[in-house]
Amino acid sequence: MTDIASESSDGDLPLAAVGSVGSPIDLSQLEAEARSHLDPVIAAYVGSGAGDSVDANMCAWERVRLQPFMLQDVTRVSTTTTVLNHFTSSPILVAPTAMHRLVCPEGERATARAAAAAGTVYVVSMAATRSIEDIASAAPDGLHWMQAYVRRDRGVTRASLERAAAAGCQAIVVTVDSPGTPDYRARPGRPLNGSLPLPNLAPSDPHPDVLEVAADYATDLSFDELTQIRSWTGLPLVVKGILRGGDAARCVEAGADAIAVSNHGGRQIPGCLPTAAALPEVVQAVAGRADVYVDGGIRSGSDVLKALSLGATAVMVGRPIIWGLAINGETGARAVLEELQLQLKRTMALCGVVDARAVPRDLVRGL
Amino acid sequence: MTDIASESSDGDLPLAAVGSVGSPIDLSQLEAEARSHLDPVIAAYVGSGAGDSVDANMCAWERVRLQPFMLQDVTRVSTTTTVLNHFTSSPILVAPTAMHRLVCPEGERATARAAAAAGTVYVVSMAATRSIEDIASAAPDGLHWMQAYVRRDRGVTRASLERAAAAGCQAIVVTVDSPGTPDYRARPGRPLNGSLPLPNLAPSDPHPDVLEVAADYATDLSFDELTQIRSWTGLPLVVKGILRGGDAARCVEAGADAIAVSNHGGRQIPGCLPTAAALPEVVQAVAGRADVYVDGGIRSGSDVLKALSLGATAVMVGRPIIWGLAINGETGARAVLEELQLQLKRTMALCGVVDARAVPRDLVRGL
Amino acid sequence: MTDIASESSDGDLPLAAVGSVGSPIDLSQLEAEARSHLDPVIAAYVGSGAGDSVDANMCAWERVRLQPFMLQDVTRVSTTTTVLNHFTSSPILVAPTAMHRLVCPEGERATARAAAAAGTVYVVSMAATRSIEDIASAAPDGLHWMQAYVRRDRGVTRASLERAAAAGCQAIVVTVDSPGTPDYRARPGRPLNGSLPLPNLAPSDPHPDVLEVAADYATDLSFDELTQIRSWTGLPLVVKGILRGGDAARCVEAGADAIAVSNHGGRQIPGCLPTAAALPEVVQAVAGRADVYVDGGIRSGSDVLKALSLGATAVMVGRPIIWGLAINGETGARAVLEELQLQLKRTMALCGVVDARAVPRDLVRGL
Amino acid sequence: MTDIASESSDGDLPLAAVGSVGSPIDLSQLEAEARSHLDPVIAAYVGSGAGDSVDANMCAWERVRLQPFMLQDVTRVSTTTTVLNHFTSSPILVAPTAMHRLVCPEGERATARAAAAAGTVYVVSMAATRSIEDIASAAPDGLHWMQAYVRRDRGVTRASLERAAAAGCQAIVVTVDSPGTPDYRARPGRPLNGSLPLPNLAPSDPHPDVLEVAADYATDLSFDELTQIRSWTGLPLVVKGILRGGDAARCVEAGADAIAVSNHGGRQIPGCLPTAAALPEVVQAVAGRADVYVDGGIRSGSDVLKALSLGATAVMVGRPIIWGLAINGETGARAVLEELQLQLKRTMALCGVVDARAVPRDLVRGL
Repeated sequence: MTDIASESSDGDLPLAAVGSVGSPIDLSQLEAEARSHLDPVIAAYVGSGAGDSVDANMCAWERVRLQPFMLQDVTRVSTTTTVLNHFTSSPILVAPTAMHRLVCPEGERATARAAAAAGTVYVVSMAATRSIEDIASAAPDGLHWMQAYVRRDRGVTRASLERAAAAGCQAIVVTVDSPGTPDYRARPGRPLNGSLPLPNLAPSDPHPDVLEVAADYATDLSFDELTQIRSWTGLPLVVKGILRGGDAARCVEAGADAIAVSNHGGRQIPGCLPTAAALPEVVQAVAGRADVYVDGGIRSGSDVLKALSLGATAVMVGRPIIWGLAINGETGARAVLEELQLQLKRTMALCGVVDARAVPRDLVRGL
Repeated sequence: MTDIASESSDGDLPLAAVGSVGSPIDLSQLEAEARSHLDPVIAAYVGSGAGDSVDANMCAWERVRLQPFMLQDVTRVSTTTTVLNHFTSSPILVAPTAMHRLVCPEGERATARAAAAAGTVYVVSMAATRSIEDIASAAPDGLHWMQAYVRRDRGVTRASLERAAAAGCQAIVVTVDSPGTPDYRARPGRPLNGSLPLPNLAPSDPHPDVLEVAADYATDLSFDELTQIRSWTGLPLVVKGILRGGDAARCVEAGADAIAVSNHGGRQIPGCLPTAAALPEVVQAVAGRADVYVDGGIRSGSDVLKALSLGATAVMVGRPIIWGLAINGETGARAVLEELQLQLKRTMALCGVVDARAVPRDLVRGL
Repeated sequence: MTDIASESSDGDLPLAAVGSVGSPIDLSQLEAEARSHLDPVIAAYVGSGAGDSVDANMCAWERVRLQPFMLQDVTRVSTTTTVLNHFTSSPILVAPTAMHRLVCPEGERATARAAAAAGTVYVVSMAATRSIEDIASAAPDGLHWMQAYVRRDRGVTRASLERAAAAGCQAIVVTVDSPGTPDYRARPGRPLNGSLPLPNLAPSDPHPDVLEVAADYATDLSFDELTQIRSWTGLPLVVKGILRGGDAARCVEAGADAIAVSNHGGRQIPGCLPTAAALPEVVQAVAGRADVYVDGGIRSGSDVLKALSLGATAVMVGRPIIWGLAINGETGARAVLEELQLQLKRTMALCGVVDARAVPRDLVRGL
Repeated sequence: MTDIASESSDGDLPLAAVGSVGSPIDLSQLEAEARSHLDPVIAAYVGSGAGDSVDANMCAWERVRLQPFMLQDVTRVSTTTTVLNHFTSSPILVAPTAMHRLVCPEGERATARAAAAAGTVYVVSMAATRSIEDIASAAPDGLHWMQAYVRRDRGVTRASLERAAAAGCQAIVVTVDSPGTPDYRARPGRPLNGSLPLPNLAPSDPHPDVLEVAADYATDLSFDELTQIRSWTGLPLVVKGILRGGDAARCVEAGADAIAVSNHGGRQIPGCLPTAAALPEVVQAVAGRADVYVDGGIRSGSDVLKALSLGATAVMVGRPIIWGLAINGETGARAVLEELQLQLKRTMALCGVVDARAVPRDLVRGL
């Protein structure tokens, strides 16, 4: 818990030039800059979405408005929170995103160090281009959660998750919104991952094609099987990709420790319900029995605070981390996280909210 | 019923270049490409709409959002369905559109082969530039339904429909939204159909002008007369162009086997109610006594799934087929159909829906 | 009452080139063409609006959607109606607009002939640049209603109206939405009317400045005084500029024969309620005791039909008439009127409505 | 109270060239002109906002529509009102904005003279670049209210306010929406105020940096402390920055004489509730026990009238005053105020409202 008046703004952060004088930095402005650093095929992959679902995610946050409380003592504002019983500096987690070496040479090692420096959880994608052991050792004090797509051969997934547990990961995040082949028909004519390895997803393949491996994702995962998956490692289980209250309740009843409300960053289902619209019913259905996270279109500390007011325990941020990595590697990713944390703290203070774990439910109002 | 994991995406399809890496192909992007293949007068005719009604159709689908079910077994997803007791590979039918030789040399023969190859119904427009016998023989195993505008002289229409029945058509689609002269005041200065014949609409006229013939459409068609029209061939009757529940009920009571909710692709009435907004009340009024189809602004498998969730038996697709024909003839039209089928199947899998005949009504939510 | 099938579309009308093949002609496209014929100061005057009120008028019609009835006998569609007990060819009246000689040499004589040829009412603006006698004699069989702003000196207004009655005008239209000086601070540096006379508004002034005269409009007109004004000529009284049900009821109780729902074409009050939004409550308050007209943003026959379904007796059209006059004088104005009449008839036929005097109230649905 | 017909429009005002013929002048068009007079860093500072909150403020006024009353006697329209028992020529006050010498050489002296000439209140920002004594003496007959940010050291603030009282200020405006460091991370690399003094905010510092001083704003101000602050001078107390009914009620109970509904011009909280949306609940909670002012996005007399109809006692205008100062110093600022006053009076007359202190609550309707 820090005194908000004692913070200095660091003019040396690579993001400092973004935003006009007096305005909070607008992270979405980083997208164009990041794009200029990337191969067009990679930039298209990072930015891709299904129909209007990316825009719909962002618009849904815009329709939620903050109605601040004044004349509260905000001398001390705490953004720290607890996710799955781990303390973090803020409720802003790094969402699992694939293949960071496509956007910066250090890849997931840079992300791990950035997240650890920012004091938050890094959810490592199973499609990382560094091994989980390598990632974990890059930031030995960091919080690492292992994301997994469940494979047709459950043994493959179990082995991956046991390996992640052995490497020190503190939780398992099972993505349940991607059964079967992803919809990558417009392929670049070569593996999207180029010659990069996928040491967790395809550890024994020297030249894997990420899209071919992805075709092996299970299509018959069930609520009941979540109980079994959780038992493989005993680690807390986050079920990621839920958009309905009923589904969330069934996950909790199967043993899930957290629900991540997500539509995969708007990348899968055209015309999908935005996550901000799905969040309240999931929160209500979970009824405090598990953490609830949300991702999709979070671009500011204001968005984070809206999510917390709608009942989320924490948010996950995906594309902005990639933009930070593309622009300036570890430093860039860390700057994005710290910018969001600072924005959250400032917006909390301006809204009269001092504890990220106790954001009033009536702080937000629809427009 | 196919295993969704066994599909390969065919990089050779002419549509494969559309869409960025990882994104589903956006059919609406084909419009510009198709336009470049067409005479400007023809392109304007294909794209024309009444006021904002084309846009309104598309916007209405955008406002309907998919709220997917997770952790369902989607190993086997079936898009097959039954329309008028005929099995089709999907609930995506080819809407009747006029004069295909204006956009590709083979004309309706190409369309017939494309639809048959895609395993679905081709609703042949009475204003086809190939005879129904020619079309039927081009795809002898295909499902062909004959669309008709009822003429002032009912005998002309009866003869056309009897001829269609003799040629093997399995159903009759009577378009009821076009009484009298169409609103073609801004004419190209020559017959819109050029020197192309209209062997079904004007079989005995060597040089017909489609707009002159269209002026002969009946203006006094009644619900009662539907019973009589159905009796001419005994074939199942689809009434196309309904936008009110009350009208739909009266059609069913007059013997209609299916109702096609349609505003003629937004081409007739400026300021018309979009079909997605009309569909629910028609579904409710029909109450399972007949099939319900819908067209107008369907541009993705996601739109198809939304229509099914709103209670449609199937959708009809018009302009995208024309775009496919214009770009690459039979191959193009087939690619459009297969792309939509694939999108439907993927979106169903991602939404936890395995049977196109049993899409949950609560899969969609308004925004 | 004409058979809609017997109409021929006249390719010689100057509007025929507007609109793509197969699309109804979009009158709003005439604005740019008209602008090219006009002095920029005049074009700015014609197009001017108060804040967003012009756009708001048009958007309000867009939000109202037509939900057509099918399978009605529309062989005979009648757009004829009765306004103040006069038969007109359609419920589309010419709204009062000022100074037609600014846009075509013949000025209001052209407008009078166009309206008479189209079989409808021409509401002559008190700010006409031709005398009412001259206008009336230009179209001796036409229906002419005299619009008036009430002056501070009631005698001036009474004299004008008595003169109009003597010239054969069949009704008086008192505009009540313009008390006092109009908001013309950004003047062109010379009289807006140039050297044109204003023979009705300022008959004795050889070089009047329309904006100076307008500063003389009464600011203390009351509901009670309407009774007196009506008694001056005994002609039927239309009260123009009403946007509230309560005001409409009081006008009727004071003897008004018709209420014109109008916000002066969106030219006066920034942020004004659009007329389509005000119409229903006025219709309800009038409760059949008087005619109800509406203007503001009517740009198509579809808009006209929406207004009728919302309960209007007729509509008034302003700017499109000016555009027609600017493009082609009398012929242009007549073409605009006939285009709107044709659009209305076609849209009625397509909506299953055969009588403009009996448009079902449930033909429209909000979006 | 003036006769609205006796006003002359002054063609010499520097704003007269804005707006097309016949249209009310659109103040928002001044922004671009003002920008051309300013250093880009200053222009960016003036225009800056937090996320979409500036646009949201303006859009919220657009959604409120005026539904005018006709046939009222509007010969005499009075915009005069009483704020904190002081008569003003209109309910349009000058909002506190910082550092006017950044935009014109005379700085706050020019603003003071402009406000006094326009007969309204000038709320002097504590961050003025002229001393309050200097400002007060520039317009000795003017109404000056002193705005204050409460500092960590209450004594500093008390001294400032006592000094303001001694200089003749008639009220104190405490801004409560800015606890702690403002979010000025993207600094210009030099003090934003250049070498300009801040004689009220930092009277003893010869070279203050406004952003450093701002970091000293109190973060622990409470409702209870408002009572104490009010007692320092005994002057009426305006609490500025309230967006919730509950907060407003607590301020009133603590002794506030007025509540200013404000989100700091949309500059602080991204995604903030617009002030027009917050106003009704504050009006209801205050229940006549105190004045209610509102700022944020007010750009026309129509907006002012909407605010009054929603229950505001008066509005405050910020950026447009700065634009006027930047374009033409005192004359420009006065022209902006007089333009708004004139627009208000005209819009009142056109809406049938004669007294700014008694605007009907049903004059406005949501869209």
